Formats: sequence, C-alpha cells, structure tokens
Amino acid sequence: MLKIAIDAMGGDFGPEPIIQGVIAALKKDRHFTAVLVGVKDELLPLIPQKFDKRIVIHEASDVISMSDSATDALKRKESTAYQAIELVRNGKADAYVSAGHSGASMSLATLRIGRIKGVSRPAIATLMPTMDGTTLVLDVGANVDCDANNLKEFAIMGQVYAEDVLGIDDPLTGLLSNGEEESKGNEVSKEAFKLCEPLPNFVGNVEGNDIFNGTVDVVVCDGFVGNIMLKTAEGVADTISKIIKNNLRRSLVSITGAVLMRKVFKKLKLKVDYAEYGGAPLIGVKAPVIIAHGKSNATAMKNAIFQAIAAADSNMNQNIQDNLEKYKG
Amino acid sequence: MLKIAIDAMGGDFGPEPIIQGVIAALKKDRHFTAVLVGVKDELLPLIPQKFDKRIVIHEASDVISMSDSATDALKRKESTAYQAIELVRNGKADAYVSAGHSGASMSLATLRIGRIKGVSRPAIATLMPTMDGTTLVLDVGANVDCDANNLKEFAIMGQVYAEDVLGIDDPLTGLLSNGEEESKGNEVSKEAFKLCEPLPNFVGNVEGNDIFNGTVDVVVCDGFVGNIMLKTAEGVADTISKIIKNNLRRSLVSITGAVLMRKVFKKLKLKVDYAEYGGAPLIGVKAPVIIAHGKSNATAMKNAIFQAIAAADSNMNQNIQDNLEKYKG
Repeated sequence: MLKIAIDAMGGDFGPEPIIQGVIAALKKDRHFTAVLVGVKDELLPLIPQKFDKRIVIHEASDVISMSDSATDALKRKESTAYQAIELVRNGKADAYVSAGHSGASMSLATLRIGRIKGVSRPAIATLMPTMDGTTLVLDVGANVDCDANNLKEFAIMGQVYAEDVLGIDDPLTGLLSNGEEESKGNEVSKEAFKLCEPLPNFVGNVEGNDIFNGTVDVVVCDGFVGNIMLKTAEGVADTISKIIKNNLRRSLVSITGAVLMRKVFKKLKLKVDYAEYGGAPLIGVKAPVIIAHGKSNATAMKNAIFQAIAAADSNMNQNIQDNLEKYKG
Repeated sequence: MLKIAIDAMGGDFGPEPIIQGVIAALKKDRHFTAVLVGVKDELLPLIPQKFDKRIVIHEASDVISMSDSATDALKRKESTAYQAIELVRNGKADAYVSAGHSGASMSLATLRIGRIKGVSRPAIATLMPTMDGTTLVLDVGANVDCDANNLKEFAIMGQVYAEDVLGIDDPLTGLLSNGEEESKGNEVSKEAFKLCEPLPNFVGNVEGNDIFNGTVDVVVCDGFVGNIMLKTAEGVADTISKIIKNNLRRSLVSITGAVLMRKVFKKLKLKVDYAEYGGAPLIGVKAPVIIAHGKSNATAMKNAIFQAIAAADSNMNQNIQDNLEKYKG
C-alpha cells in the first residue's frame, strides 16, 4: 500500500481544502494511505470517522508561511514541510505533496530526499493546455540560470516523465527558442541543441506558440524563461476573458447569449485552469514530489495526489537514471 | 516636408498592399512624401495619377526574399532594402519602413545608418495589448544574448520612445523577471536591476502577466525572452479563439448568439491583432526605422508609416543620446 505524505497545513486556505482533496482521492483510489503532517488537534475534527484507517496523522506544529524565506527551511525541523519530507527520506512514505511554500518544498526535497544519480538539478514541470491535450514544459521556476547540460538533462527527465507517468509513447521533445531553425537561439540554447541531438524524438527548436498547438509533447527551457512563459500565458488568458466579459456586458446580452457563454466559459476554464491538472512535479529527486498551487482547492489537491501516485507506481526514476547514463556526453 | 523611404517590394504579398497603405497614409497626412523603392514599371501602374506629386519612385530591382540570409544584405547593393536605407543614410529620406526581411532591415539600418551615440545595440520594440491601452516591450528579437548594460540601455530607449513618440508622460518601466522581488531574476537581470535603479520611473521587476494588465508602460527583456513571450501570447490567443469557436459550433448557436459573438470577435481581434499597431520600431539607430510584418495589409502599412512620421517628428534620438550620457554608469 502506497503512503503519500501530505503537508496538511501549508496551503493559503489552511487544512480544509487539503483534507477534502485527500478524502476525494481516497474515495476514488483504494490503494494508498494518506499521512497528513500537521497539528493533530486541528486536523482530526476535519476527518470523517470512516476514513480513520486510511488517514494517519504525523504531528508537526510549525508552518512555513508563503512570506518566509526558503533558505530557513532546512533549519525549521519541526515544520510540516520538513517533517513530511523526512517521512519520505526515511522510507516511511513514498511520495510528498504540498500546497505550501514552493521554494521550501523544492530545497527540502533536493537536499533531504536527494537527487537521482546523474541529475545535476531537479526541475519543476507543468502541463500547458493545447486544443486537444497538454504539453509538458520544464523547467518553470526551479533554476533561473542553466547551462546547456542542465537543459539536456531536463529534456531526458521530461521525456521519461511524459512516457512513464503521462503515458505518452515516444514523446516528441523540443527546445524553446526564438525560431525553429537550428541557427536560432542564445548561446546556451544553441549549445543545448547540439547536446540534445542524440536523444530519440528530439525535434529541435520550437517557439512559444508551439507549446499551445500540440506540435510536441515536451518543451525544455530554463526556469527564468519558463516562469515568464507561464505568467505570459496566464496574463493573455485573463485579459481575453476580461475583454469578452466586458463586451458581453456592454452588448446587453439576450438570455440565449448568456446561457451560451456560460457553457463556453466553463469549458474554457477547464482548458486554461492549471489547477485542474493538479500540481507541478519536481522531477529529478529520488521520490515523487508534487508542488501544488498555494490556492489549491479540493480538486487540485485530489489531482496532485493522483499525480504523486502515478509517479510512485511508475519506473520513472530508474529510467531517468538509466537514460542520463545512456546519453552521457 | 518629411520624406519616408519605403521598401515597396519586400512584403509577402508584393507591392499592392504596400502602395495601398501608402495612399491611405497620404490621404490622411498632407505633410510627407513617400519615396517608393522598387521596380518602376511594376509600381507605376498601381499609383493613381492624383498622387503623382507625393510619391517618388527610386529604382531598385533586387528583392531580398524572406528565405535569404540576412548576412548577404550588405553585399546586395541593388536591393530595395539596401537602396531605401541608403536614401536615409544620405539624407535623401528621413525614415525607413519595410515589410521585407526583418533581419536584413535590422543589419542594414544598424550598419549603414548607424547607431545613436552611446547605444551599444539597437532593439526591436513592440506594443502588446492591455485592457485599455498598450505596453511597449523591448527587445523582442534583435539581440538574443544581452548583458546587464544592454538591458539598461533598452530601458532608457524604451522610456524615451514611450514619452516622445507614444506621448506617455513619465512612463513606468519594469524589468521582465520570474518574480517581483528584487531578489528574483537570473544573473544578468539581477545585475541589470541594479543598473536601472537610478532611472526615473523604474519600478523594478515585473512578471509576464504584468505586460497585459497595464501595470507599467515599458517592459525590458532580452530578445530571446522577448520573442518567446511574443509567440506565447500569440499562441494562447489563437488557442482560446479556436476553443471558443469550436464550442460555439458544437452548441448549435442561435442567431442571437452568433451575431453577438461576431461583435466580440471583432473587438477581440482589434485588441490582439498586432498588425493594427503598424510595425515594430528599431530603436537606437540614427533615423526612424519601422519593421512591419511580412504579411502586412494596407492598414498595417499605413500605421507603420504614421509610426515613422511620429518618430521623425519627435526629438527621440537626441533624448536617447542625452539620457544615455546622463545615466552612464
């Protein structure tokens, strides 16, 4: 039976949506136990009795808040994040899920659980929506300065994750650049292009719009570019939604129009709402680590737990290690 | 009377939309002459007689096509782009507009017209739409590898362009990064942050979504990041449009709904259609240079010409030189 360690207190909205997500996940999947890390007295009243046997509480009282510095995370040994990571480190849990301070989770996971052999730096991956699927993009924030070899490792890690966890056969992989031609790119990306050429299913450079048109399954970039890409996408989606809503209001919509648009917005939201996909996996550490959004609701938490289970059930980490060795420069 | 040198053959659709744009501009603005550079025999039949006096044709027969290499541009002295640039270089025209090979225009302008004193590298700027205005972003493609000083110069050039050409008083300026805090950024952007601090109206780091919410007037980044940001924005806008259209089709829209959506799409297109803003100025060369999209229609060409006129009528280049000197490190 898999054990998933969950930081029960770290999210923006406290333990309630987290526990609701845990319960929703337990109802759907009978093959795991949830280890909630937090203050027992606060958590117990939120857990229905019939889940008693499948939810274990591990006491921890300190919560690293969003405004705290990630650099202190290693010293705050009584924090929910630290304790949950230690459960994984000590083999008492198989995976870690947190909607808390993402920087703290990342550094604790990297330093305490440790990197897979051959991984220079773990990377945060996220799924971006396309018309009829998703594209896995990494890194989107863990590493702002990357060299060419880091990017090549991200390509290998992304391919393995796409294949082993997302179930995509032979995932096509591109390097994010300012044009498709091999001659395009900055110094680092041009060097990375050469290092990636031996990888199977590497298609070369891709552009920003390729993330959303389904050209490839995996897109590789450094965390600085990845974060800017992510925020740009969110900004455009927000602005377009506002323009549409404003114009609808101004046009004194008929009931027909309003009903119609509600349907469209619902589908649109599902496509662009990243929370729907759960959380962002930190790929490259020795156990599955899922970084959920601070504002995660129960659905997002449920999906984050399923991501952790899918990763824990896969042979991902062994395959990452093997492929890094196989394609070593 | 201002003289605008226009590459009449360089666009994807040949001289027709270009000349239509020139005529539309001439009808609206009585204070400039258009110098069309191209094959006289091909251009003359497209020009109505009543514009004879305000359109001059400068013969040039070679056209640098989109698939040609920009590195040959300097050698192809009979090309429309080269000849049009030479008119500006020799003082026979005041500004340059082209929908042709953008790399060729950039290198010809930089090398033949020359950089403003103090400018290390000219930058391409573009306007991105917000709810109720636009944000100027530079660089979006001229320089893929930039150092901190390049970025600081872009900030100064962008501020002057926003103030002198776009008419924005005290334009707020931000540095594109992976978070708002001063501690965020990659090595180069963190150093640039420090160099930009003495600039008036520098607000610090901004994120990708800030480009679209009107937080600032000018956003600074390197050309690699700028291009990825631009293509990401286009990709998201395209995908959302497709999702909406698909869902409308599936829902068997009533006539009310369809009419309504046509209105919304028209306004939406106006907001996200970058062609509406004309072209992208190459800021930092000694005369106004406007790089229009290869697929520019008559409206885009007209607007590109107006941009060139606004820049030529301004004191932009002197102010760029003065400010670069004033804030020299």
